[in-house]
Amino acid sequence: MGEKVIIIGAGLCGTLLALRLAQRGYTVTVYEKRPDMRKNTISAGRSINLALSDRGLRGLALAGAEEDVLPLTIPMYGRMLHPQVGEETMVKYSGRDGEWINSVSRGGLNMVLLDKAEATGKVHLHFGKGCDEVDLETGSVTLRDEATGSTFTDRAEVVFGTDGANSAIRNAMLRESARYRFDFSIKYLPTAYKELEIPPAEGGGFRLEKNALHIWPRDGFMMIALPNLDGSFTVTLFLPHTGEVSFAQLTDDILIRSFFEQYFPSACAHMPDLISDFHSNPTSSLGTVKCYPWQVNGKFLLMGDAAHAVVPFYGQGMNASFEDVLVLDGLIDKYAGDWSGILEEYQQIRKQDADAIADLAVENELEMRSATADPVFLLKRRIELKMEQTYRDYFSKYSMVTFREDLPYSYAMKRGRAQDEILMKYAAGINSMAEFDEQEVLRLIHTLDG
Amino acid sequence: MGEKVIIIGAGLCGTLLALRLAQRGYTVTVYEKRPDMRKNTISAGRSINLALSDRGLRGLALAGAEEDVLPLTIPMYGRMLHPQVGEETMVKYSGRDGEWINSVSRGGLNMVLLDKAEATGKVHLHFGKGCDEVDLETGSVTLRDEATGSTFTDRAEVVFGTDGANSAIRNAMLRESARYRFDFSIKYLPTAYKELEIPPAEGGGFRLEKNALHIWPRDGFMMIALPNLDGSFTVTLFLPHTGEVSFAQLTDDILIRSFFEQYFPSACAHMPDLISDFHSNPTSSLGTVKCYPWQVNGKFLLMGDAAHAVVPFYGQGMNASFEDVLVLDGLIDKYAGDWSGILEEYQQIRKQDADAIADLAVENELEMRSATADPVFLLKRRIELKMEQTYRDYFSKYSMVTFREDLPYSYAMKRGRAQDEILMKYAAGINSMAEFDEQEVLRLIHTLDG
Repeated sequence: MGEKVIIIGAGLCGTLLALRLAQRGYTVTVYEKRPDMRKNTISAGRSINLALSDRGLRGLALAGAEEDVLPLTIPMYGRMLHPQVGEETMVKYSGRDGEWINSVSRGGLNMVLLDKAEATGKVHLHFGKGCDEVDLETGSVTLRDEATGSTFTDRAEVVFGTDGANSAIRNAMLRESARYRFDFSIKYLPTAYKELEIPPAEGGGFRLEKNALHIWPRDGFMMIALPNLDGSFTVTLFLPHTGEVSFAQLTDDILIRSFFEQYFPSACAHMPDLISDFHSNPTSSLGTVKCYPWQVNGKFLLMGDAAHAVVPFYGQGMNASFEDVLVLDGLIDKYAGDWSGILEEYQQIRKQDADAIADLAVENELEMRSATADPVFLLKRRIELKMEQTYRDYFSKYSMVTFREDLPYSYAMKRGRAQDEILMKYAAGINSMAEFDEQEVLRLIHTLDG
Repeated sequence: MGEKVIIIGAGLCGTLLALRLAQRGYTVTVYEKRPDMRKNTISAGRSINLALSDRGLRGLALAGAEEDVLPLTIPMYGRMLHPQVGEETMVKYSGRDGEWINSVSRGGLNMVLLDKAEATGKVHLHFGKGCDEVDLETGSVTLRDEATGSTFTDRAEVVFGTDGANSAIRNAMLRESARYRFDFSIKYLPTAYKELEIPPAEGGGFRLEKNALHIWPRDGFMMIALPNLDGSFTVTLFLPHTGEVSFAQLTDDILIRSFFEQYFPSACAHMPDLISDFHSNPTSSLGTVKCYPWQVNGKFLLMGDAAHAVVPFYGQGMNASFEDVLVLDGLIDKYAGDWSGILEEYQQIRKQDADAIADLAVENELEMRSATADPVFLLKRRIELKMEQTYRDYFSKYSMVTFREDLPYSYAMKRGRAQDEILMKYAAGINSMAEFDEQEVLRLIHTLDG
């Protein structure tokens, strides 16, 4: 039997980590506060589907899980933009063939990973066990049986906190922040979100284009929709908590109905249960969590949302978490399994990339809800797609973040922002694609290489 | 009997607030976790003496407490700089007469305020009662008797959290951060601190200049000393936690002794108990806390360190807290005692100033430990002092922060930084005060008014 490790939290990150560590020979004990989602209906509160892209796929491939997951996915080749007035337009995510993102059900993906982890015979999953207390000095954790309330203690050489945005392991570090000089921040957006649904068409099939991420950009707010395997779309309304047009104003059914008919008439025609969904689904906040150090005493390590919860506007939260597993895995051999070396180098190389995707995600809200309705931005996107078609070496910021799993997020952010600045200025100076001069744009972009 | 309010925490801010609200006719219940410091020796862990300046004095004056406090203070007219090599130099805090800061004992000041609050007959102080639970919706708080462990609940229309840098009220807001969109950050410096002592001279009196704040700037670290009424000085060593020259390196008595003899020979000659003080006093971290909103539901308000814990390098933590009381007091009439209006406007006007002093305090560490040993900086300070002597309207950044209680911290920061930039550039361009051209500097400064 291999060395024992403990993982707190059997969400996407914790389960992939458990699977991978089992493959490396460790004996893995996983504690998860919620019941086993394979046997119980999951409570709401987390987004229902997610966009899986190349960084996430690379993490899954490392654990041999890519083939298990692909059947659950629906390719989305671009953004289908639904303007307030006029025709919908598809804007592809990449100018190259073979680059797209994938809609996948959070629950479906998690269950496949749980099954695969358990099948190794080296992963012991304990559901309904919440982490109650943490002794950061000794590496012991006290778990509480959520059904009986009884508690017990377990320990291992290393404990991974993959227990999500409200991590108990992280909260233990925060309680002793002066001791570990644990920097922490949580910052909320003015925007809230609520999930809604477009059901399958009568008799089956999709009511909107299946292979797209749909966006209804309305400047101060937006609605998006991602396809599900059953023909439905999970719809998310992003709208300020308070203000002139906000959730706070939608106080009765007439106001809710007229809001949707005013701003999203084509979509709400496909939403028969709009009013009841609106009332039964929560209105949730959107926050970014940053903290450091992620490891304490070479014994505890935060990973995934526990270390870096991001807002959803770049569709990279899960992908970043799977990449975390990949980065950690790459250090196990280097340090011959010495956890204090692994954990220290992990946090040092990974922190800047987690910060980068957190910041990119916040910025991208504005791109999604405003820029996608801006003619200059749309022209700039057309220029970029053309550049990507023509030049193998050109990758937009979006492409570097999403399709270049070989580049760190921090590089993608820095290079991508510089490109964006050049291209937005260029696009503002021309009237249409007819005036677009490929060589000139290439020259401008190459100034960044100097 | 006036309307009841609850204050959690009877430190400097909570006690001045209690006194002032009692004067306004409120009935004030104060719960403090620690025992009554007037009857018990206080545990260490907080700095022993503080610099009281004009903002703090203005807050005390509002409550008629200035005259009670002044006998406890020792004026400090400037920084006495002790270079590694060469003679000590006094650099005054202001070029004007009548502008200085005051060394005061935290405990002594707190006790005076407790007595004065109690003497109103309207302030009910309960010691040894820690805040255990907080119901942010209803305004109720559960207190725990620290001696017996028994708990009880109290409530009021408004509850003030003046319970310091690790506030229980703030932690309750953080636990429900998604609900209240409560932004929070804590950030630590690489620098740690340890308090030491220079005792009174044999037969009484001060071993160093009494009326100065002493600094031994050593670039990467420093030591400071503030005078006490009994002739002693409270000494604070600010040194990195880890690294080449750091607390982590001072592992035995020989290393401690040789560190002090190398860097602070003149001071350590006055520190007979250096080694035992070094071992018995804690090495503490330095962190900045920012958060927002400070008020929840018009029922709970964070004030003082609970809302904005700052590092000590501008000597403004207590002064900012007393100014908090003044700002709040100014809103009570405006809203005719309606707490939801008072609390909302309070946080809106006060937040930017709290952020400003927090940022100024972090920056000032470098000024104290490095710049005060830099000839250009010292020349710039001489220029500023001369400007202050000559021009009634000229105030350095330090003077605006420290002596201009009529200016908000945020203004002092913005204007002060702009002046600093101009003057540092000017000072770098001349060789000595002989080349200093008052009219030219005045002209440069006036460019900021444009």
